[in-house]
Amino acid sequence: MKNALVILAEGFEELEAVTIMDLLVRANIEVTSVGLNPGPITASRQTVILPSAHIDDIDPGAFDIVILPGGLPGADYLAGDPRVIRLVQQQVKENKFVAAICAAPRVLVKAGVCHDKTICCYPGSLDHLDTSHIEITSNAVCADLPIITSRGPGTAMDFALHLIELLEGEEKRQNVEDALVRNYDDVSP
Amino acid sequence: MKNALVILAEGFEELEAVTIMDLLVRANIEVTSVGLNPGPITASRQTVILPSAHIDDIDPGAFDIVILPGGLPGADYLAGDPRVIRLVQQQVKENKFVAAICAAPRVLVKAGVCHDKTICCYPGSLDHLDTSHIEITSNAVCADLPIITSRGPGTAMDFALHLIELLEGEEKRQNVEDALVRNYDDVSP
Repeated sequence: MKNALVILAEGFEELEAVTIMDLLVRANIEVTSVGLNPGPITASRQTVILPSAHIDDIDPGAFDIVILPGGLPGADYLAGDPRVIRLVQQQVKENKFVAAICAAPRVLVKAGVCHDKTICCYPGSLDHLDTSHIEITSNAVCADLPIITSRGPGTAMDFALHLIELLEGEEKRQNVEDALVRNYDDVSP
Repeated sequence: MKNALVILAEGFEELEAVTIMDLLVRANIEVTSVGLNPGPITASRQTVILPSAHIDDIDPGAFDIVILPGGLPGADYLAGDPRVIRLVQQQVKENKFVAAICAAPRVLVKAGVCHDKTICCYPGSLDHLDTSHIEITSNAVCADLPIITSRGPGTAMDFALHLIELLEGEEKRQNVEDALVRNYDDVSP
Protein backbone atom coordinates (compact mmCIF):
# COMPACT_ATOMS: atom_id res chain seq x y z
CA MET A 1 0.00 0.00 0.00
CA LYS A 2 1.39 3.40 -1.01
CA ASN A 3 1.42 6.10 1.59
CA ALA A 4 1.17 9.86 1.47
CA LEU A 5 2.00 12.59 3.95
CA VAL A 6 -0.02 15.82 3.88
CA ILE A 7 1.40 18.65 5.99
CA LEU A 8 -1.08 21.14 7.42
CA ALA A 9 -0.14 24.52 8.87
CA GLU A 10 -2.52 27.10 10.33
CA GLY A 11 -4.15 28.85 7.37
CA PHE A 12 -3.85 25.98 4.87
CA GLU A 13 -6.34 25.95 1.99
CA GLU A 14 -8.91 23.43 3.16
CA LEU A 15 -10.54 22.73 -0.21
CA GLU A 16 -7.16 21.80 -1.67
CA ALA A 17 -6.03 19.68 1.29
CA VAL A 18 -9.32 17.85 1.69
CA THR A 19 -9.82 17.22 -2.03
CA ILE A 20 -6.36 15.63 -2.20
CA MET A 21 -6.75 13.55 0.97
CA ASP A 22 -10.24 12.39 0.00
CA LEU A 23 -9.25 11.27 -3.51
CA LEU A 24 -6.08 9.52 -2.35
CA VAL A 25 -8.08 7.54 0.22
CA ARG A 26 -10.54 6.63 -2.54
CA ALA A 27 -7.52 5.20 -4.41
CA ASN A 28 -6.56 3.08 -1.38
CA ILE A 29 -3.50 5.17 -0.65
CA GLU A 30 -2.77 5.52 3.06
CA VAL A 31 -2.96 9.19 3.99
CA THR A 32 -1.29 10.63 7.09
CA SER A 33 -2.07 14.25 7.84
CA VAL A 34 0.18 16.09 10.26
CA GLY A 35 0.05 19.51 11.82
CA LEU A 36 3.06 21.71 12.54
CA ASN A 37 1.58 22.17 16.00
CA PRO A 38 -0.27 19.52 18.03
CA GLY A 39 -4.06 19.65 18.08
CA PRO A 40 -6.67 21.08 15.73
CA ILE A 41 -5.58 23.29 12.80
CA THR A 42 -7.71 26.17 11.53
CA ALA A 43 -7.65 26.46 7.74
CA SER A 44 -7.69 29.66 5.67
CA ARG A 45 -11.51 29.72 5.41
CA GLN A 46 -12.09 28.69 9.05
CA THR A 47 -12.58 24.95 8.67
CA VAL A 48 -11.04 23.25 11.71
CA ILE A 49 -9.35 19.90 11.04
CA LEU A 50 -7.81 17.42 13.45
CA PRO A 51 -4.76 15.93 11.71
CA SER A 52 -4.11 12.23 12.20
CA ALA A 53 -0.63 12.83 13.73
CA HIS A 54 1.90 15.47 14.69
CA ILE A 55 4.91 16.16 12.50
CA ASP A 56 7.36 15.24 15.27
CA ASP A 57 5.76 11.81 15.71
CA ILE A 58 6.23 10.45 12.18
CA ASP A 59 9.13 8.72 10.43
CA PRO A 60 9.94 11.34 7.79
CA GLY A 61 11.50 8.75 5.46
CA ALA A 62 8.41 6.54 5.38
CA PHE A 63 6.34 8.23 2.67
CA ASP A 64 6.05 7.63 -1.06
CA ILE A 65 4.89 11.20 -1.46
CA VAL A 66 4.91 14.39 0.60
CA ILE A 67 2.11 16.81 -0.28
CA LEU A 68 1.92 20.50 0.61
CA PRO A 69 -1.45 22.23 0.28
CA GLY A 70 -1.54 25.96 -0.41
CA GLY A 71 -3.38 28.72 1.33
CA LEU A 72 -2.05 31.71 3.21
CA PRO A 73 -0.59 32.10 5.73
CA GLY A 74 -0.31 28.27 5.67
CA ALA A 75 2.25 28.07 2.86
CA ASP A 76 4.44 30.65 4.58
CA TYR A 77 4.40 28.68 7.82
CA LEU A 78 5.46 25.60 5.85
CA ALA A 79 8.23 27.56 4.11
CA GLY A 80 9.48 28.89 7.43
CA ASP A 81 9.59 25.53 9.21
CA PRO A 82 13.00 23.79 9.15
CA ARG A 83 11.32 20.38 9.68
CA VAL A 84 9.33 20.84 6.46
CA ILE A 85 12.32 22.13 4.50
CA ARG A 86 14.47 19.17 5.63
CA LEU A 87 11.71 16.70 4.81
CA VAL A 88 11.28 18.14 1.29
CA GLN A 89 15.03 18.12 0.65
CA GLN A 90 15.41 14.55 1.91
CA GLN A 91 12.46 13.35 -0.16
CA VAL A 92 13.90 14.85 -3.37
CA LYS A 93 17.37 13.53 -2.55
CA GLU A 94 15.88 10.01 -2.43
CA ASN A 95 14.04 10.71 -5.69
CA LYS A 96 10.65 10.32 -3.98
CA PHE A 97 7.67 12.46 -4.92
CA VAL A 98 7.03 15.92 -3.51
CA ALA A 99 3.82 17.68 -4.51
CA ALA A 100 2.77 21.28 -3.86
CA ILE A 101 -0.23 23.33 -4.95
CA CYS A 102 -1.28 26.99 -5.04
CA ALA A 103 1.07 29.05 -2.84
CA ALA A 104 2.96 25.99 -1.56
CA PRO A 105 5.45 25.74 -4.46
CA ARG A 106 7.19 28.60 -2.65
CA VAL A 107 8.16 26.00 -0.03
CA LEU A 108 9.94 24.01 -2.76
CA VAL A 109 11.71 27.13 -4.01
CA LYS A 110 12.75 27.94 -0.45
CA ALA A 111 14.04 24.36 -0.05
CA GLY A 112 16.13 24.79 -3.20
CA VAL A 113 14.78 21.73 -4.98
CA CYS A 114 13.44 23.45 -8.13
CA HIS A 115 16.71 24.30 -9.86
CA ASP A 116 16.31 23.65 -13.62
CA LYS A 117 12.78 22.35 -13.01
CA THR A 118 9.46 23.35 -14.56
CA ILE A 119 6.74 24.09 -12.03
CA CYS A 120 3.39 25.83 -11.79
CA CYS A 121 1.77 27.69 -8.91
CA TYR A 122 -0.97 30.15 -7.96
CA PRO A 123 -0.48 33.20 -10.20
CA GLY A 124 1.89 35.65 -8.55
CA SER A 125 2.67 33.47 -5.57
CA LEU A 126 6.41 33.28 -6.35
CA ASP A 127 6.79 36.96 -7.23
CA HIS A 128 9.16 37.92 -4.44
CA LEU A 129 11.40 34.87 -4.63
CA ASP A 130 14.45 34.17 -6.72
CA THR A 131 13.11 32.00 -9.52
CA SER A 132 16.09 32.19 -11.83
CA HIS A 133 16.84 28.68 -13.12
CA ILE A 134 13.16 27.74 -12.61
CA GLU A 135 10.64 27.58 -15.46
CA ILE A 136 7.15 28.61 -14.37
CA THR A 137 4.25 27.45 -16.55
CA SER A 138 0.52 28.15 -16.42
CA ASN A 139 -0.43 24.48 -16.71
CA ALA A 140 -3.06 23.24 -14.27
CA VAL A 141 -0.75 20.40 -13.23
CA CYS A 142 2.96 20.20 -13.90
CA ALA A 143 4.99 17.01 -13.32
CA ASP A 144 8.77 17.41 -13.50
CA LEU A 145 9.54 14.41 -11.37
CA PRO A 146 10.01 13.95 -8.56
CA ILE A 147 8.25 17.30 -8.22
CA ILE A 148 4.57 17.76 -9.04
CA THR A 149 2.90 21.15 -8.77
CA SER A 150 -0.51 22.66 -9.40
CA ARG A 151 -2.17 26.08 -9.53
CA GLY A 152 -4.98 26.40 -7.01
CA PRO A 153 -8.38 25.30 -5.69
CA GLY A 154 -9.82 24.96 -9.19
CA THR A 155 -7.09 22.51 -10.18
CA ALA A 156 -6.94 20.51 -6.92
CA MET A 157 -9.08 17.68 -8.26
CA ASP A 158 -6.96 17.26 -11.39
CA PHE A 159 -3.86 17.45 -9.23
CA ALA A 160 -5.11 14.70 -6.92
CA LEU A 161 -6.07 12.52 -9.87
CA HIS A 162 -2.63 13.02 -11.37
CA LEU A 163 -1.00 11.97 -8.09
CA ILE A 164 -3.15 8.83 -8.08
CA GLU A 165 -2.04 8.03 -11.62
CA LEU A 166 1.61 8.41 -10.61
CA LEU A 167 1.24 6.24 -7.51
CA GLU A 168 -1.32 3.65 -8.61
CA GLY A 169 -1.60 3.83 -12.39
CA GLU A 170 -4.03 5.02 -14.99
CA GLU A 171 -6.79 2.48 -14.37
CA LYS A 172 -7.06 3.38 -10.68
CA ARG A 173 -7.10 7.07 -11.58
CA GLN A 174 -9.92 6.45 -14.04
CA ASN A 175 -11.94 4.46 -11.51
CA VAL A 176 -11.66 7.22 -8.93
CA GLU A 177 -12.46 9.90 -11.50
CA ASP A 178 -15.53 8.07 -12.80
CA ALA A 179 -17.02 7.90 -9.30
CA LEU A 180 -16.76 11.68 -8.87
CA VAL A 181 -19.47 12.41 -11.50
CA ARG A 182 -17.63 15.25 -13.21
CA ASN A 183 -19.97 16.21 -16.00
CA TYR A 184 -18.63 19.52 -17.12
CA ASP A 185 -20.74 19.56 -20.28
CA ASP A 186 -23.83 19.88 -18.25
CA VAL A 187 -23.43 22.42 -15.49
CA SER A 188 -26.35 24.68 -16.29
CA PRO A 189 -29.15 24.19 -13.77
CA MET B 1 -24.56 39.36 5.68
CA LYS B 2 -26.16 36.16 4.43
CA ASN B 3 -25.72 33.06 6.52
CA ALA B 4 -25.57 29.37 5.74
CA LEU B 5 -25.94 26.26 7.85
CA VAL B 6 -24.02 23.12 6.87
CA ILE B 7 -25.05 19.96 8.73
CA LEU B 8 -22.37 17.31 9.23
CA ALA B 9 -23.07 13.72 10.26
CA GLU B 10 -20.48 10.97 10.79
CA GLY B 11 -19.50 9.77 7.32
CA PHE B 12 -20.24 12.99 5.43
CA GLU B 13 -18.36 13.53 2.16
CA GLU B 14 -15.57 15.87 3.20
CA LEU B 15 -14.62 17.14 -0.26
CA GLU B 16 -18.20 18.24 -0.86
CA ALA B 17 -18.70 19.82 2.56
CA VAL B 18 -15.36 21.63 2.60
CA THR B 19 -15.61 22.87 -1.00
CA ILE B 20 -19.00 24.39 -0.22
CA MET B 21 -17.95 25.94 3.11
CA ASP B 22 -14.70 27.31 1.67
CA LEU B 23 -16.34 28.96 -1.35
CA LEU B 24 -19.20 30.45 0.67
CA VAL B 25 -16.70 32.00 3.09
CA ARG B 26 -14.82 33.40 0.09
CA ALA B 27 -18.12 35.06 -0.91
CA ASN B 28 -18.43 36.65 2.56
CA ILE B 29 -21.33 34.42 3.53
CA GLU B 30 -21.34 33.47 7.19
CA VAL B 31 -21.03 29.69 7.48
CA THR B 32 -22.07 27.75 10.56
CA SER B 33 -21.20 24.06 10.55
CA VAL B 34 -22.98 21.81 13.03
CA GLY B 35 -22.59 18.19 13.97
CA LEU B 36 -25.44 15.87 14.88
CA ASN B 37 -23.32 14.87 17.87
CA PRO B 38 -21.08 17.18 19.92
CA GLY B 39 -17.35 17.12 19.21
CA PRO B 40 -15.27 16.12 16.17
CA ILE B 41 -16.94 14.41 13.20
CA THR B 42 -15.15 11.80 11.09
CA ALA B 43 -15.94 12.13 7.39
CA SER B 44 -16.37 9.31 4.86
CA ARG B 45 -12.66 9.35 3.86
CA GLN B 46 -11.39 9.77 7.42
CA THR B 47 -10.91 13.54 7.57
CA VAL B 48 -11.81 14.71 11.08
CA ILE B 49 -13.54 18.09 11.30
CA LEU B 50 -14.53 20.12 14.33
CA PRO B 51 -17.84 21.83 13.50
CA SER B 52 -18.34 25.38 14.70
CA ALA B 53 -21.45 24.49 16.74
CA HIS B 54 -23.80 21.68 17.76
CA ILE B 55 -27.19 21.33 16.12
CA ASP B 56 -29.03 21.73 19.42
CA ASP B 57 -27.34 25.07 20.08
CA ILE B 58 -28.46 26.98 16.98
CA ASP B 59 -31.60 28.92 16.13
CA PRO B 60 -32.97 26.76 13.30
CA GLY B 61 -34.91 29.66 11.78
CA ALA B 62 -31.87 31.90 11.45
CA PHE B 63 -30.38 30.70 8.16
CA ASP B 64 -30.82 31.92 4.59
CA ILE B 65 -29.81 28.48 3.40
CA VAL B 66 -29.47 24.99 4.87
CA ILE B 67 -26.93 22.79 3.10
CA LEU B 68 -26.64 19.01 3.31
CA PRO B 69 -23.41 17.39 2.07
CA GLY B 70 -23.52 13.84 0.78
CA GLY B 71 -21.42 10.84 1.66
CA LEU B 72 -22.42 7.58 3.24
CA PRO B 73 -23.36 6.77 5.89
CA GLY B 74 -23.59 10.54 6.50
CA ALA B 75 -26.64 11.17 4.34
CA ASP B 76 -28.50 8.31 6.02
CA TYR B 77 -27.79 9.72 9.47
CA LEU B 78 -29.17 13.06 8.26
CA ALA B 79 -32.26 11.36 6.80
CA GLY B 80 -32.86 9.50 10.05
CA ASP B 81 -32.57 12.53 12.33
CA PRO B 82 -35.89 14.21 13.21
CA ARG B 83 -34.09 17.50 13.95
CA VAL B 84 -32.77 17.61 10.38
CA ILE B 85 -36.10 16.61 8.85
CA ARG B 86 -37.94 19.31 10.84
CA LEU B 87 -35.35 21.91 9.89
CA VAL B 88 -35.65 21.08 6.19
CA GLN B 89 -39.45 21.14 6.29
CA GLN B 90 -39.52 24.45 8.16
CA GLN B 91 -37.02 26.01 5.77
CA VAL B 92 -39.07 25.03 2.71
CA LYS B 93 -42.30 26.15 4.39
CA GLU B 94 -40.76 29.61 4.79
CA ASN B 95 -39.60 29.49 1.16
CA LYS B 96 -35.95 29.66 2.23
CA PHE B 97 -33.22 27.75 0.39
CA VAL B 98 -32.39 24.11 1.07
CA ALA B 99 -29.45 22.58 -0.80
CA ALA B 100 -28.36 18.94 -0.96
CA ILE B 101 -25.66 17.15 -2.94
CA CYS B 102 -24.72 13.56 -3.82
CA ALA B 103 -26.62 11.13 -1.57
CA ALA B 104 -28.18 13.92 0.52
CA PRO B 105 -31.17 14.59 -1.74
CA ARG B 106 -32.58 11.44 -0.11
CA VAL B 107 -32.97 13.57 3.02
CA LEU B 108 -35.20 15.94 1.05
CA VAL B 109 -37.24 13.05 -0.32
CA LYS B 110 -37.60 11.67 3.20
CA ALA B 111 -38.70 15.12 4.41
CA GLY B 112 -41.39 15.15 1.72
CA VAL B 113 -40.37 18.48 0.21
CA CYS B 114 -39.68 17.32 -3.37
CA HIS B 115 -43.24 16.71 -4.55
CA ASP B 116 -43.56 17.98 -8.16
CA LYS B 117 -39.96 19.22 -8.04
CA THR B 118 -37.04 18.54 -10.36
CA ILE B 119 -33.88 17.43 -8.56
CA CYS B 120 -30.57 15.72 -9.26
CA CYS B 121 -28.46 13.45 -7.08
CA TYR B 122 -25.63 10.91 -7.12
CA PRO B 123 -26.58 8.26 -9.68
CA GLY B 124 -28.64 5.53 -8.02
CA SER B 125 -28.79 7.19 -4.62
CA LEU B 126 -32.59 7.45 -4.62
CA ASP B 127 -33.21 3.95 -6.00
CA HIS B 128 -35.00 2.52 -2.99
CA LEU B 129 -37.16 5.53 -2.26
CA ASP B 130 -40.57 6.50 -3.56
CA THR B 131 -39.74 9.12 -6.19
CA SER B 132 -43.12 9.27 -7.87
CA HIS B 133 -44.06 12.93 -8.39
CA ILE B 134 -40.34 13.82 -8.47
CA GLU B 135 -38.43 14.49 -11.69
CA ILE B 136 -34.81 13.35 -11.48
CA THR B 137 -32.38 14.89 -13.97
CA SER B 138 -28.70 14.24 -14.66
CA ASN B 139 -27.77 17.92 -14.55
CA ALA B 140 -24.70 18.80 -12.51
CA VAL B 141 -26.71 21.38 -10.59
CA CYS B 142 -30.47 21.63 -10.46
CA ALA B 143 -32.30 24.62 -9.00
CA ASP B 144 -36.04 24.21 -8.50
CA LEU B 145 -36.35 26.84 -5.81
CA PRO B 146 -36.26 26.83 -2.91
CA ILE B 147 -34.51 23.49 -3.47
CA ILE B 148 -31.06 23.24 -5.05
CA THR B 149 -29.43 19.86 -5.68
CA SER B 150 -26.25 18.52 -7.21
CA ARG B 151 -24.69 15.19 -8.18
CA GLY B 152 -21.45 14.54 -6.34
CA PRO B 153 -17.83 15.45 -5.56
CA GLY B 154 -17.11 16.38 -9.18
CA THR B 155 -19.93 18.93 -9.20
CA ALA B 156 -19.42 20.36 -5.70
CA MET B 157 -17.54 23.41 -6.96
CA ASP B 158 -20.22 24.28 -9.50
CA PHE B 159 -22.84 23.69 -6.82
CA ALA B 160 -21.12 26.06 -4.39
CA LEU B 161 -20.72 28.71 -7.09
CA HIS B 162 -24.39 28.40 -7.95
CA LEU B 163 -25.33 28.89 -4.30
CA ILE B 164 -23.16 32.01 -4.20
CA GLU B 165 -24.93 33.35 -7.27
CA LEU B 166 -28.32 32.75 -5.64
CA LEU B 167 -27.32 34.39 -2.36
CA GLU B 168 -24.99 37.16 -3.50
CA GLY B 169 -25.45 37.62 -7.24
CA GLU B 170 -23.59 36.91 -10.43
CA GLU B 171 -20.72 39.37 -9.95
CA LYS B 172 -19.76 37.87 -6.58
CA ARG B 173 -19.93 34.39 -8.06
CA GLN B 174 -17.64 35.44 -10.88
CA ASN B 175 -15.14 37.03 -8.50
CA VAL B 176 -14.96 33.88 -6.41
CA GLU B 177 -14.72 31.66 -9.48
CA ASP B 178 -11.93 33.73 -11.03
CA ALA B 179 -9.78 33.35 -7.91
CA LEU B 180 -10.02 29.55 -8.08
CA VAL B 181 -7.88 29.31 -11.24
CA ARG B 182 -10.07 26.75 -13.02
CA ASN B 183 -8.30 26.32 -16.32
CA TYR B 184 -9.87 23.21 -17.69
CA ASP B 185 -8.38 23.73 -21.16
CA ASP B 186 -4.99 23.07 -19.84
CA VAL B 187 -4.89 20.11 -17.49
CA SER B 188 -2.22 18.08 -19.21
CA PRO B 189 1.00 18.15 -17.25
